[in-house]
Amino acid sequence: MPTDIQPLVPPARTLCGPGPSDVAPSVLSALARPTLGHLDPEFLRVMDEVRTMLRAVFRTENELTMPMSGTGSAGMETCLVNLIEPGDAVLVGVHGVFGTRMAEVARRAGANVTVVEQEWGRAIDPERFRTAAAGGKFKLLCCVHAETSTGVLQDVAALRSVADELGALLLVDAVTSLGGHDLQLDAWGVDAVYSGTQKCLSCPPGLSPISFSSRASEALAARKTPVQSWYLDLSLIASYWGEERAYHHTAPINMIYGLHEALRLVLEEGLEERIERHALHARALVAGLGAMGLEPRVAASERLAPLTAVAVPDGVDDARVRGHLLRQFDLEIGGGLGPMKGNTWRIGLMGAGSTRRNVSLVLTALASALAEQGRTAAGDPLAAAAEVYG
Amino acid sequence: MPTDIQPLVPPARTLCGPGPSDVAPSVLSALARPTLGHLDPEFLRVMDEVRTMLRAVFRTENELTMPMSGTGSAGMETCLVNLIEPGDAVLVGVHGVFGTRMAEVARRAGANVTVVEQEWGRAIDPERFRTAAAGGKFKLLCCVHAETSTGVLQDVAALRSVADELGALLLVDAVTSLGGHDLQLDAWGVDAVYSGTQKCLSCPPGLSPISFSSRASEALAARKTPVQSWYLDLSLIASYWGEERAYHHTAPINMIYGLHEALRLVLEEGLEERIERHALHARALVAGLGAMGLEPRVAASERLAPLTAVAVPDGVDDARVRGHLLRQFDLEIGGGLGPMKGNTWRIGLMGAGSTRRNVSLVLTALASALAEQGRTAAGDPLAAAAEVYG
Repeated sequence: MPTDIQPLVPPARTLCGPGPSDVAPSVLSALARPTLGHLDPEFLRVMDEVRTMLRAVFRTENELTMPMSGTGSAGMETCLVNLIEPGDAVLVGVHGVFGTRMAEVARRAGANVTVVEQEWGRAIDPERFRTAAAGGKFKLLCCVHAETSTGVLQDVAALRSVADELGALLLVDAVTSLGGHDLQLDAWGVDAVYSGTQKCLSCPPGLSPISFSSRASEALAARKTPVQSWYLDLSLIASYWGEERAYHHTAPINMIYGLHEALRLVLEEGLEERIERHALHARALVAGLGAMGLEPRVAASERLAPLTAVAVPDGVDDARVRGHLLRQFDLEIGGGLGPMKGNTWRIGLMGAGSTRRNVSLVLTALASALAEQGRTAAGDPLAAAAEVYG
Repeated sequence: MPTDIQPLVPPARTLCGPGPSDVAPSVLSALARPTLGHLDPEFLRVMDEVRTMLRAVFRTENELTMPMSGTGSAGMETCLVNLIEPGDAVLVGVHGVFGTRMAEVARRAGANVTVVEQEWGRAIDPERFRTAAAGGKFKLLCCVHAETSTGVLQDVAALRSVADELGALLLVDAVTSLGGHDLQLDAWGVDAVYSGTQKCLSCPPGLSPISFSSRASEALAARKTPVQSWYLDLSLIASYWGEERAYHHTAPINMIYGLHEALRLVLEEGLEERIERHALHARALVAGLGAMGLEPRVAASERLAPLTAVAVPDGVDDARVRGHLLRQFDLEIGGGLGPMKGNTWRIGLMGAGSTRRNVSLVLTALASALAEQGRTAAGDPLAAAAEVYG
């Protein structure tokens, strides 16, 4: 029996990678509140408040809006398996890890998947969806609003008319945009969306907020075959989150406490204000990086605010830089994935972590790490960032 | 924007229902530790310690042992979808909600399901599995070790030889037994098991510990079709929890902190000592209930220690009793499910909640609730419980 294992004392990192992001102290405290039963009237009230706040943050009136009991990828799978029946035609925009994943999950759900490919690091022109569809009809058009693997923002509103032409529901990955970028489900005509808690909401990972439009809910109700996943079957889960309160699975009570407090903080700050804050600190970061000779991977017009992808300069050792940041500054930034592995850093300024303090820390720490490899910055990164703050 | 929602202040209940159970203060504190990145070397160490402790608690050497990022039902689905390929023959023992659920999940995974039915409230005689199999071969034999819906304990060890005759892997639901009842994966020849964190481990709900034997892992490796769920695909998830540390999904970091501390407490107490503690307090509870004229639903030889099902006396209003407990004593007990709805109480003494204090509270509160409906106990429940403690 391994009885020599000690209680946890995790170091206090600053999380400026692609997520999880820094968690606000009041969210951590909420996690530690006493556990209630999943049918306790007090907990049912918490659930209702979470749904109300989620609708506000998603900017929707959708009845079917709630957090799934899994991480963002469980939310992705929820949307796909509830809307796909075997043989359905599905069109997926792929320009990074998460579009690739959507296509794979859709295939496993029995869909006929058509992929709209785009070079990683670029948004996808809506015209390419039309071309790939080749006049056919589709059940779903899927795209990633904020590609966490590349730092690219996709114009979702522009895809609504394409979806209409294809007769398709519009399904959106908003894992890295919810609470940090403009996202308007109802105004843009999004039919299904999933997100995560550990990005711009600044709650630990473990839940995936989702929302279905009435059109998507009708498609769910009209299914001829059962949803392949029982755990993610929305018709069953909606009975627990809805008025019937029918037992499905035991909800992750304390994680939902954390999400409750995280959403409360978003609304207390104001959604618009929060989005502007993300934009401001991203601009300052990019200015500072520029002064160090570090170039963003993504053009300004297609660049995410919560996550900035930067090219690793030729001859600089990626892993050694990230190791230096972690050991010397307790600072985490992300490496690249897929074709960007080893040549890209992903710097997240998300939620509670989108602050001037973190911009300064990232710039200072990166300058130190590059100096340690004999690279001295041409300009003054902190001064360049300060100019943005004015 | 709903900006008038206040921070959470949940009442401090005593949880003596079918789960979640009372959570130890140090587990709640662990949840609130600073979030680490899912690839942080310090977090990878936490993951390794969790796996080591899980193996000890499951009493196994199985390499493939880890918590899934979902609740117990996600663990159930994980075991089934990873081991079932379309058309596989699966034999499922059904004598409550969770056996019924296994059969349903197996069907959705494309299995040919044969059900071995037994009256709710009774264990299933191994002979009935043989009879139902009718000499056929099966991929899986599934049973529920501890039926949370009825309070019945199933002899799992006795099913190994049946599984061998059928050429089947033995899959076990140990949601309510892990850490509270004798459970020996390796000695009993269990091939796949899932559990939950919110029962006898006394961690909040949100994770599902699972373990696969080498035989089950070989069956997984020999699959001809992809696992229908990407989120629950063990071949992918094992690469993250194993030496490769390949990114799959962002692990629920803080929940894993909680599980780390909960497992540490189990091993600090000693697994045998903990199991004996559950047995002792269950005996005291049943003695006290007996003095009040409340009869257990399950015969002593087939009765769970962590969960006692009791018949609601004729003419007593179930919901009114549970409401009285909650309002007057901040005490939760469970109602019945399915055919036991309205006529059964489920009283859990699990993990940190399996204490003499809780036995006394349940007996006192139930006596009060029954008195409120004009029922006076014939004997003295606290004295009867005290006799068991000696």
